[in-house]
Amino acid sequence: MIVVLKPLATQEMIERMARRVEELGLKAHVIVGTERTVIAAIGDKRNGEKETLEACAEVDQVLPILAPYKVASRETKPEPTIIELGLFAAGGPNIGIIAGPCSVESEEQIMETARLVKQAGATALRGGAFKPRTSPYAFQGLKEVGLQLLAAAREETGLIVVTEVMSPQDVDLVAAYADVLQIGARNMQNYNLLQAVGETRKAVLLKRGMAATIDEFLLAAEYILDQGNQNVMLCERGVRTFESHTRFTLPLASVPYLHQKTHLPVIIDPSHGTGHAPLVAPMCTAAVAAGCDGLIIEVHPDPSKAMSDGPQSLTPGAFADAMAQCRKVAAALDRQLH
Amino acid sequence: MIVVLKPLATQEMIERMARRVEELGLKAHVIVGTERTVIAAIGDKRNGEKETLEACAEVDQVLPILAPYKVASRETKPEPTIIELGLFAAGGPNIGIIAGPCSVESEEQIMETARLVKQAGATALRGGAFKPRTSPYAFQGLKEVGLQLLAAAREETGLIVVTEVMSPQDVDLVAAYADVLQIGARNMQNYNLLQAVGETRKAVLLKRGMAATIDEFLLAAEYILDQGNQNVMLCERGVRTFESHTRFTLPLASVPYLHQKTHLPVIIDPSHGTGHAPLVAPMCTAAVAAGCDGLIIEVHPDPSKAMSDGPQSLTPGAFADAMAQCRKVAAALDRQLH
Amino acid sequence: MIVVLKPLATQEMIERMARRVEELGLKAHVIVGTERTVIAAIGDKRNGEKETLEACAEVDQVLPILAPYKVASRETKPEPTIIELGLFAAGGPNIGIIAGPCSVESEEQIMETARLVKQAGATALRGGAFKPRTSPYAFQGLKEVGLQLLAAAREETGLIVVTEVMSPQDVDLVAAYADVLQIGARNMQNYNLLQAVGETRKAVLLKRGMAATIDEFLLAAEYILDQGNQNVMLCERGVRTFESHTRFTLPLASVPYLHQKTHLPVIIDPSHGTGHAPLVAPMCTAAVAAGCDGLIIEVHPDPSKAMSDGPQSLTPGAFADAMAQCRKVAAALDRQLH
Amino acid sequence: MIVVLKPLATQEMIERMARRVEELGLKAHVIVGTERTVIAAIGDKRNGEKETLEACAEVDQVLPILAPYKVASRETKPEPTIIELGLFAAGGPNIGIIAGPCSVESEEQIMETARLVKQAGATALRGGAFKPRTSPYAFQGLKEVGLQLLAAAREETGLIVVTEVMSPQDVDLVAAYADVLQIGARNMQNYNLLQAVGETRKAVLLKRGMAATIDEFLLAAEYILDQGNQNVMLCERGVRTFESHTRFTLPLASVPYLHQKTHLPVIIDPSHGTGHAPLVAPMCTAAVAAGCDGLIIEVHPDPSKAMSDGPQSLTPGAFADAMAQCRKVAAALDRQLH
Repeated sequence: MIVVLKPLATQEMIERMARRVEELGLKAHVIVGTERTVIAAIGDKRNGEKETLEACAEVDQVLPILAPYKVASRETKPEPTIIELGLFAAGGPNIGIIAGPCSVESEEQIMETARLVKQAGATALRGGAFKPRTSPYAFQGLKEVGLQLLAAAREETGLIVVTEVMSPQDVDLVAAYADVLQIGARNMQNYNLLQAVGETRKAVLLKRGMAATIDEFLLAAEYILDQGNQNVMLCERGVRTFESHTRFTLPLASVPYLHQKTHLPVIIDPSHGTGHAPLVAPMCTAAVAAGCDGLIIEVHPDPSKAMSDGPQSLTPGAFADAMAQCRKVAAALDRQLH
Repeated sequence: MIVVLKPLATQEMIERMARRVEELGLKAHVIVGTERTVIAAIGDKRNGEKETLEACAEVDQVLPILAPYKVASRETKPEPTIIELGLFAAGGPNIGIIAGPCSVESEEQIMETARLVKQAGATALRGGAFKPRTSPYAFQGLKEVGLQLLAAAREETGLIVVTEVMSPQDVDLVAAYADVLQIGARNMQNYNLLQAVGETRKAVLLKRGMAATIDEFLLAAEYILDQGNQNVMLCERGVRTFESHTRFTLPLASVPYLHQKTHLPVIIDPSHGTGHAPLVAPMCTAAVAAGCDGLIIEVHPDPSKAMSDGPQSLTPGAFADAMAQCRKVAAALDRQLH
Repeated sequence: MIVVLKPLATQEMIERMARRVEELGLKAHVIVGTERTVIAAIGDKRNGEKETLEACAEVDQVLPILAPYKVASRETKPEPTIIELGLFAAGGPNIGIIAGPCSVESEEQIMETARLVKQAGATALRGGAFKPRTSPYAFQGLKEVGLQLLAAAREETGLIVVTEVMSPQDVDLVAAYADVLQIGARNMQNYNLLQAVGETRKAVLLKRGMAATIDEFLLAAEYILDQGNQNVMLCERGVRTFESHTRFTLPLASVPYLHQKTHLPVIIDPSHGTGHAPLVAPMCTAAVAAGCDGLIIEVHPDPSKAMSDGPQSLTPGAFADAMAQCRKVAAALDRQLH
Repeated sequence: MIVVLKPLATQEMIERMARRVEELGLKAHVIVGTERTVIAAIGDKRNGEKETLEACAEVDQVLPILAPYKVASRETKPEPTIIELGLFAAGGPNIGIIAGPCSVESEEQIMETARLVKQAGATALRGGAFKPRTSPYAFQGLKEVGLQLLAAAREETGLIVVTEVMSPQDVDLVAAYADVLQIGARNMQNYNLLQAVGETRKAVLLKRGMAATIDEFLLAAEYILDQGNQNVMLCERGVRTFESHTRFTLPLASVPYLHQKTHLPVIIDPSHGTGHAPLVAPMCTAAVAAGCDGLIIEVHPDPSKAMSDGPQSLTPGAFADAMAQCRKVAAALDRQLH
């Protein structure tokens, strides 16, 4: 950390702050500049020392040098983490494709979707059984029945099952059916939930909060990793900005940036990232071209009948077309979908 | 709702969509404009009909007319909701003052703070026992011991206790000690938690999510109200924007805007809203001048020793000064702090 | 437009507003809903009628149905506008590549860059002679000497010249040397400048303002089109959000979205869009995969010596590699770079 | 500046970068930490050295210590700058009140407004003669005729005249009529215009760009100051965020923050900052309570007839009420409006 002192800091103030830095277990190195004095605080500390120093009256600001996360960092583990589950693989040359409806609505709906997305190239099935909905008046999901239908679809198609868990007390139940536990964007900083999924050894798909910085995103992953669960996939699903023509703003530069900073695989969600079906296919190919490790895409047999997220759901035909384009782009860049 | 059809919609498409609107239980009223045809869909529906219609191939966009929340709306209940708990009152001419440390750290710390903030004019004591922390390596709170210390401070000072609950399974425990259950910004859309506090009859302080729209904020309140708990206070604590000189951006216009839309009291959190102690006092007086129903302010006996949020914590002396200024502004506008 | 009246509007208020709508030259169509009365105001008006109606005491809000721009709209002109200038083409199957340094610094620098980017596949040369700099203490450009150097580079390489104009009084001078007049992001709403370039018949590269909505972006284009200059290219260069790990946030969904709304070609600027050279190449391939009509990329013979934008400038070698990848992706999607 | 080297930097890389720092005229001070090596680059340089160092392959990031602006800084000039022009004063105990219509529309309109705002306590008259409008189809202002009407209103009422100048070539014309030259938000980074007003000795009201950081805002002021014109007032008028219920988001914490960083007076624009007349009065009192040096408020004799900004314009009666409240709050805090 670099502790920048206030202008006109006296020698006494400088010494007091240097002592404070040392009390925190860091080595203090004073540098007197032309306009400001700074203290370099040397050492590997991530327990709130920055805040503590910032709260001192002598201090103008504290600039961190090290990333606040550690286990998630590529400096800690340079080789990429690869998640492999049955047909599904993400993190190496393979691009994992997760597709399916926003919500599991009925046996017919989920079975039909599973068959069609499998045929078009998906290797995992998504579908919500526990649904976090903005309005209390909206459809809240089929709960355990939904999980059973997902398991039945896996049985028939071989697709692995990705589904959301919303609350710590539901983790065991959802884990009994799912292959990948999804943490939704609204729960990215629900720390009890992160710890609960961290205690399982199930793979986790962690969605970025809609206003989370990349550091906060990786610290949320760190909560899971810190419990000993190393099977974490990061999902960029768009951030909230002043843009209103798309549901969220999808920053694909997160893909190469995250690849620089972390060994965890990066999955893109172009459905939530845009909110409009006609924009999904171009963002699928763009995400593949940006180097993503996987895609998660909403597909519904009839979007105009969907109980949630219809406007951003692809028809099975549109999904198949998008996958065909993705396969071409992946091949051009020496990668593959399956 | 106004359903805007795509340009060049044929008569057949118009009729199909009008039927679809009627199937959803709404009355369809077709209006042919010079460039576009729209269908006014008349009726009081808030169960996802907007999304369903938007997913139709014939539709360009759907513009809602009614607010998505209902019980929280001032149209439903024109008179303001007043929360009164012991000394504390918010929602009428009185401005409730909640003050205390970010975290409960020790008996000495919380007792000293409680006495000093009481003396300076606070009517409620804040203090975190369960702490949602961005980093897994940061102090996570004293848990039940913290709750006991808060109760002891109430015993001595008469201040009511406001403290955060982070998980549905902790609601009973926290409710056994607290007078007001705080839902943190990161949990504003943790729907299981909202329902769990909705099932109690404790007052709730609901903080706005850092990127939540006002509609989403009121829908989160609606989750609580919908369970039968009418004692909800809304807390504006700043939103995330491109501004980085403050921790968050505090939009005080939320106060009069929320007062137009809802009957629930509006509390301002200038500590999180700015992140820097020197900016807190001016935002306290500004919030009072904007018409807020209460303030929640972080105060610590020695911010440079605080285990969390030191940089934004006021010293007891600075807090007393801020309250003195607030009292003057309140009096000038015919309101009062106590 | 849909004029939503306040709750509890009386019959008299409804009639008064209907008359007001008619006075503005629109046809009023009253619809009485279950909770609100709305007036559909029918007609093609874009002269501020929305604001006028919103200012009426009877009105809660006004929802526009038609886009505020007209000449830029794809409804007005369904076929895409293609810009062809020498080797450069954008708007059809061809993807135009504009490359070069942020600033023209010297004859040697611009000549060397021009040769190298031409060789790697560029069809246009960029380089700033008039530089809008955030700080008054930063390098402000070589002005007319810079323009002469650009013209010399065109002479030798055949690349067309794209360069920024910052002020209406410089338009004639810059137009005397440039093939494409660039309007920078900070000047997107400098209306005198837009009108001045609109009066020329030079092609214009209009950069999106860092916080401009898509509607505002297209209205800025409309200022140019409205003067009779149809040769406008839109450049998405990233928007300002809370993200700070990239210089701006690059929303590639703008490509398919703009293609839906307008006939004008869409160019992507991954250099400003990310701010970091290692992120530029993946955003180039992603932009091509998203369907862009062109790219504008900063390239410098030695970025660590650049007088501006060094951190986001590619070396000629990195640029050649990025172009090789783009060519593969373009070919996979049946498009081409040259 | 603190130059953070990449992880695993070799001794040779460290030495090369230290030499590079010295070549730029700065003193290099190497600090070897536990995980990273940093170089403190000591000296007062603001000419792009940060960018240059960031572009070096050895460098991970560069953290600035000094503010990028200098003349605007309170470190350079600790005492506040006070602008006094006739009745109007801003920057000391006095709060300057600028009021009037968005656009000058007619003699009757501007005269009536001037009389009424004067009577209610305004000390300056605003009114646009050159209007930057988002749409080319909107009213563009009366130009010189508007300036003449403003001058006539000054003649009669004694109010000083504040009006916008949009282009460098209009500066002389506008300066011939106006007392204060307003630079609009969209032109905050129109550097030719900043320099042109900097060359006059007229007071300048510089509006913050809708997505400008505070550093960028102060650098824009620095462009004017750097030309020798010290009479600059800063105007916070709200920033663009994801909030859509207000036109912009008005961050009143800018007032105390700017007062810390700069000696220039801070004026608040609650009209653009909210976009809705009912929110303007509470933001006026809040701004006064936050310690602002002045207010600029849109007032129109009949907002529903206004040619621009009707929805956010106060009636003269509402303006008088708002001023009465502001006077009370100012008095409570030992300040005054006139």
